[in-house]
Amino acid sequence: MNEDMNVPTNHPSIALIGAGNLAVNLAPALSDSGFRIRQVYSRTQEAARSLARRVGAGYTTSPAEITPHADLYITALADSALPVLAPVIASVNPQALFVHTAGSIPMDIWKGHAARQGVLYPMQTFSKQREVDFGQIPIFVESNSPEDEALLRAVASRLSRQVYAATTEQRRSLHLAAVFACNFTNCLYTLASDILQAHHLPFDVMLPLIDETARKVHTLAPRQAQTGPAARGDRAVMAAHLEMLATHPGWQELYRTMSKMISDASQ
Amino acid sequence: MNEDMNVPTNHPSIALIGAGNLAVNLAPALSDSGFRIRQVYSRTQEAARSLARRVGAGYTTSPAEITPHADLYITALADSALPVLAPVIASVNPQALFVHTAGSIPMDIWKGHAARQGVLYPMQTFSKQREVDFGQIPIFVESNSPEDEALLRAVASRLSRQVYAATTEQRRSLHLAAVFACNFTNCLYTLASDILQAHHLPFDVMLPLIDETARKVHTLAPRQAQTGPAARGDRAVMAAHLEMLATHPGWQELYRTMSKMISDASQ
Repeated sequence: MNEDMNVPTNHPSIALIGAGNLAVNLAPALSDSGFRIRQVYSRTQEAARSLARRVGAGYTTSPAEITPHADLYITALADSALPVLAPVIASVNPQALFVHTAGSIPMDIWKGHAARQGVLYPMQTFSKQREVDFGQIPIFVESNSPEDEALLRAVASRLSRQVYAATTEQRRSLHLAAVFACNFTNCLYTLASDILQAHHLPFDVMLPLIDETARKVHTLAPRQAQTGPAARGDRAVMAAHLEMLATHPGWQELYRTMSKMISDASQ
Repeated sequence: MNEDMNVPTNHPSIALIGAGNLAVNLAPALSDSGFRIRQVYSRTQEAARSLARRVGAGYTTSPAEITPHADLYITALADSALPVLAPVIASVNPQALFVHTAGSIPMDIWKGHAARQGVLYPMQTFSKQREVDFGQIPIFVESNSPEDEALLRAVASRLSRQVYAATTEQRRSLHLAAVFACNFTNCLYTLASDILQAHHLPFDVMLPLIDETARKVHTLAPRQAQTGPAARGDRAVMAAHLEMLATHPGWQELYRTMSKMISDASQ
């Protein structure tokens, strides 16, 4: 027990609640940055065990067995699971700090359950099959006390060079923008891939274009970077494209919608 | 004149018809690869002169004054201008090879005007404000003769490591896929930027996410790379996002459409 008491506040021991896409990226990043992860919780035994093993932690699949001996509890759960589990998790240690990692969930999900509340939102797309460099990820922190905000800033700063304070309201906007810039963009990649596949062309030829499209907005505002038939007002090409999409009314509708947005913005 | 006759066929002298986004990137790439650009045509005097000066070429703003002394005529014009100018350009030198650079225009735009026809389509997004590395750009060539296809392959191979033959039909599909993966993606970046701006957040915080979204599909198929509320079936988050977009019915509609596509593909 003594060991717990002596842990410096800027180097808290951690319980990680979740073993999904974010957790499998966050746990090694925390561990590599010198944090001790005491325990990993997941309702799936295999996920809990394998992630715990990677970072030298214990694990459990039972919410009732979540350790009371951590200083900082970080949840990385599906947004629908968090409201159910938050009261259970927050009850295990009344002195500890409880933070979630979700863009769209308010900090006050902890209200009435934990005295020390916070959020640590790493804005990135995480997949289990792919390890990302946490050092490049913007992390947005929030807390209900200046001391804990400073603590979360200190923790986040060991993971990343880009750490910002953000309110619940700002984080919601960041997450919404991220859905457009990342999730919907990836959906467009999928459509492009389907179009190419239908014509026996490999998706790989699209990568230099995808890379340059992303690189371009590092130096030009997205509006200045816009090119293509809609930006040029090239009606003949757009009509031909719509005809090619005739067998996919959903894609055709999307083509119309986005071309109109580009055309309206280019005027 | 002698000088013209002795130019080896795999090192043709070039007339570049156009001085827009593609032309200002293509001309220096050709010039740096050792090709002689004899002349630049643009209807805009300033554009013609400044591009010509950069590559040590002559220039003209009059179609009637396009040089008859080039071996290879490359048009980089708005798709609407090409059908009008193609007959005029092709008439200046009956022995030369005439190629356009447009994804969605068939090779046979030259039919009845030029004996030697071709296409050289660099699939990339070009802006005047930004010089791109041609070495990374996939170039698709087509010709009405094997000899000229070989010539275009040789020319393209001096510019880029990625050169492919592609039919008019394949090129149309490539261009359509490119509109989704590049032009529409950039439109999503614009929406994300607008959302952030409305909440006084800088667009720059989005760049690591944009970069990773692009990098991810180098190693995962776009379907495997998909993340976000629609992929997880997170109805609460999607409902909250739709509410945040209430004052922008167009964005709301786009959010619904793309979330449904992702959700359908994730099942």
